Amino acid sequence: MSLKALGEFGFIRAMLQRHPLPGPFSSLVVPAGDDACAFKPSAGCDLLATCDLLVEGVHFDLSTIHPWQLGAKALAVSLSDIAAMGGMPRYYLVSLAIPKRRALNQAFFKAFYDGLAAWGSAFGAVLAGGDTTASPHSLVIDISLMGEVEAGRSLLRSGAKVGDRVYVTGALGGSAAGLACLKNKTASVDKNARALAVQRHLLPTPRFLAGRYLLTQKFSKCCIDISDGLASEAHHLCQDSSVGMELVAEAIPLHGAATVLASKFRQKALDWALYGGEDYELLFTVPEDKAQEMEYKFNNATGIRLACIGRVTPKGRGLRLLQGKVSKPLLPKGYNHFSV
Amino acid sequence: MSLKALGEFGFIRAMLQRHPLPGPFSSLVVPAGDDACAFKPSAGCDLLATCDLLVEGVHFDLSTIHPWQLGAKALAVSLSDIAAMGGMPRYYLVSLAIPKRRALNQAFFKAFYDGLAAWGSAFGAVLAGGDTTASPHSLVIDISLMGEVEAGRSLLRSGAKVGDRVYVTGALGGSAAGLACLKNKTASVDKNARALAVQRHLLPTPRFLAGRYLLTQKFSKCCIDISDGLASEAHHLCQDSSVGMELVAEAIPLHGAATVLASKFRQKALDWALYGGEDYELLFTVPEDKAQEMEYKFNNATGIRLACIGRVTPKGRGLRLLQGKVSKPLLPKGYNHFSV
Repeated sequence: MSLKALGEFGFIRAMLQRHPLPGPFSSLVVPAGDDACAFKPSAGCDLLATCDLLVEGVHFDLSTIHPWQLGAKALAVSLSDIAAMGGMPRYYLVSLAIPKRRALNQAFFKAFYDGLAAWGSAFGAVLAGGDTTASPHSLVIDISLMGEVEAGRSLLRSGAKVGDRVYVTGALGGSAAGLACLKNKTASVDKNARALAVQRHLLPTPRFLAGRYLLTQKFSKCCIDISDGLASEAHHLCQDSSVGMELVAEAIPLHGAATVLASKFRQKALDWALYGGEDYELLFTVPEDKAQEMEYKFNNATGIRLACIGRVTPKGRGLRLLQGKVSKPLLPKGYNHFSV
Repeated sequence: MSLKALGEFGFIRAMLQRHPLPGPFSSLVVPAGDDACAFKPSAGCDLLATCDLLVEGVHFDLSTIHPWQLGAKALAVSLSDIAAMGGMPRYYLVSLAIPKRRALNQAFFKAFYDGLAAWGSAFGAVLAGGDTTASPHSLVIDISLMGEVEAGRSLLRSGAKVGDRVYVTGALGGSAAGLACLKNKTASVDKNARALAVQRHLLPTPRFLAGRYLLTQKFSKCCIDISDGLASEAHHLCQDSSVGMELVAEAIPLHGAATVLASKFRQKALDWALYGGEDYELLFTVPEDKAQEMEYKFNNATGIRLACIGRVTPKGRGLRLLQGKVSKPLLPKGYNHFSV
C-alpha cells in the first residue's frame, strides 16, 4: 500500500505498532498515539534530552545507505549524546518529513523503523511518539531522545581541570574513511578496509559502557562525544571548561581502515581523525591522581580500547597539537554545515 | 554577519544566549550547550513529551508569515499538545534545517528565536537545546517539548465513556479562514475579519488554563487538541475510547471571521470547522453527572468560551453529525499530508 492511500495517521499507527510496548519494568504510562507520551521519571535521576537532525543530501544519501541502517544511525547519533553525559537512554520521538517519491514506500519505512527498533532495543530506548509530515524535497529525520542520569552527576563539557589527562575511546578517522569510500565508489581500494570503514560510517556504536563506567566509578566529570572531529570537540571542552589542551599526534588512535585507505584518497589518516567527524567515540578527562587506576581497570571493565592522547593545560595555552617535537595551535576545523 | 561566517556552532550559541536562564525555581541543571540538557523532574509528576514538525512549503510560506510569528507558532503547536494532556510545559529543543538563502540571515533567526522566547516565557517553557544543520531546499523546524503532569492523571484520548457530553473550547474554523485569506491575497474581503482570521491562523493560543482546570477539578479524563479539524479529532477520540459520538452541527461554535468570510471563498464555515484544522482548541468529554457543575464554573474560572457540541454514544453508532433532524456519518477528513 502506498503512503498516499494509507494516509498520515494510518502510517504513523502502523509503524508505531511495529514496536512492542516496553517490558514489565517500563515507566511509560502513556505510549505513542496520544497528544503526548507520558512516562514516570526514575527517583533520584535527572532527565536528559537531546535531538539530532539527519537531512537527505546533507547527512545521508539514499543510494549509499539502506533504510534499516538509516533508522539505526539516526538513533545512534542521539544515543551517543546520552552516552557522553554518562546517562542511559529511555524514550525517543521520531519526526519525519517525507517527500513524495516512489522509493519511499511502506517497505522503506518498515525497514527504517526496524532499524530504529533494533538499536533502541539494544540500548534500552523505546519509541514513544513522533510526528510525520510531507516534505517538498528531502527526507528529513529528527530524533529526540530522553535519558536519565544520577541527579547532578552528568558528565559535562565544563568539567576539565588543568593537569587532567585527556583520553579517547576506540579509534578515530574510520568514519571519514568510510565516507570517502562512499563518495568515490569507483576507487580501487582494499576491500576489507573499505567494508570496515563504510560500516564504521553507517553504523556508529554509542559508548554507553564507557560513559557509565566513568560516571559510576567517579573517574571523570568531563566528557563529550566526537561527532564533528577530534579538533572541534577538544575545542568545545577547552571553551566550556576555560582551559587549554595539548594533544599528542602520535598518541591519537587511528582506525585501521583509515590508515590503510588514506593514501588512496590523498588524505592523512590523522586529518580524518582530527577533522573528519562522525566517529562517535568519547573524549574525556581524568584527574592525574585517578588516571593510573582508571587506565588499569577501564579496558577490563568495558572491553573498549582506550588511549591517553594529551593533557589539560592552562587556558592561555589554547588548544595545541604536539607533532614530533613541534607544538602548534590546533584549529577547531570540523564539519561546518554552513561552510560547505 | 552571515550564517556562513558565523558557522553552525556560533549560530547555535548566539541564539541560545538570547534566552535568559530560567529563574530561581528552575529545575534545569545542565542548560543548552552540552551533549544533552539535564533537568530535575518534579516529584509526583509524569514526564510528557511531544514533537511537531513545520516544513516550509507544507505548513508555512515565508512570504506570509513573519519569522517572529513562525517561532511563536512552531512552539504553540507543541504547547497545544501538552495543554491537551492537562499538563504544563517545561523545556523544549529546537531542530532547524536551514537552506542557504539570503533571506534566512541572522536578523531572520533573531526574530524567530525572539518569537520562540516570547511564547515560551508566556507559558513557562524554556529553551534547553537543539540541533542545527544545512538543508538542500526547505526550512524545516522540529520542536520537541517536554512537560509535566500529576502522575497518572494525563487527559487521554482513550478516556471517553458512553453518555459523556462532548465539549469544545473557543470557536472553530477561524484558522482555515485565515489560511484561505493568505492563499488568496487579492480577494476583496472584510478587513477586520481578514485580520482576525489570519491572526488566528498564524498565532494559535494553547489552552493550558482549560486543560489544567479540567484535570485539577477532575471534570474530565478525555481530551485532544484540534490540530487537524474537528471531524478528524473526534474520530481519534472515538477510535481510542472505543465509542461513537454524535455531534450537533448547530452547536459547533463557528469563529466569527469564518462566518463572515466563508461565502467569499465559496466555502461553508461549518466545513472549515469540521475539516480545516489548526484551530488548536480543546475537544473533551465530561461525564453527565459532572457536566452541569463544569458548565457553570468553567468560563468563570478560565475566561474561555465553552460549547457542548454533542454526546458520546456506543461504538456501533460511529461518529455522526446531526444537522437539523438528519443524522449522517461524519467522515474523519482532516488535513492529510500524503494526499495533497
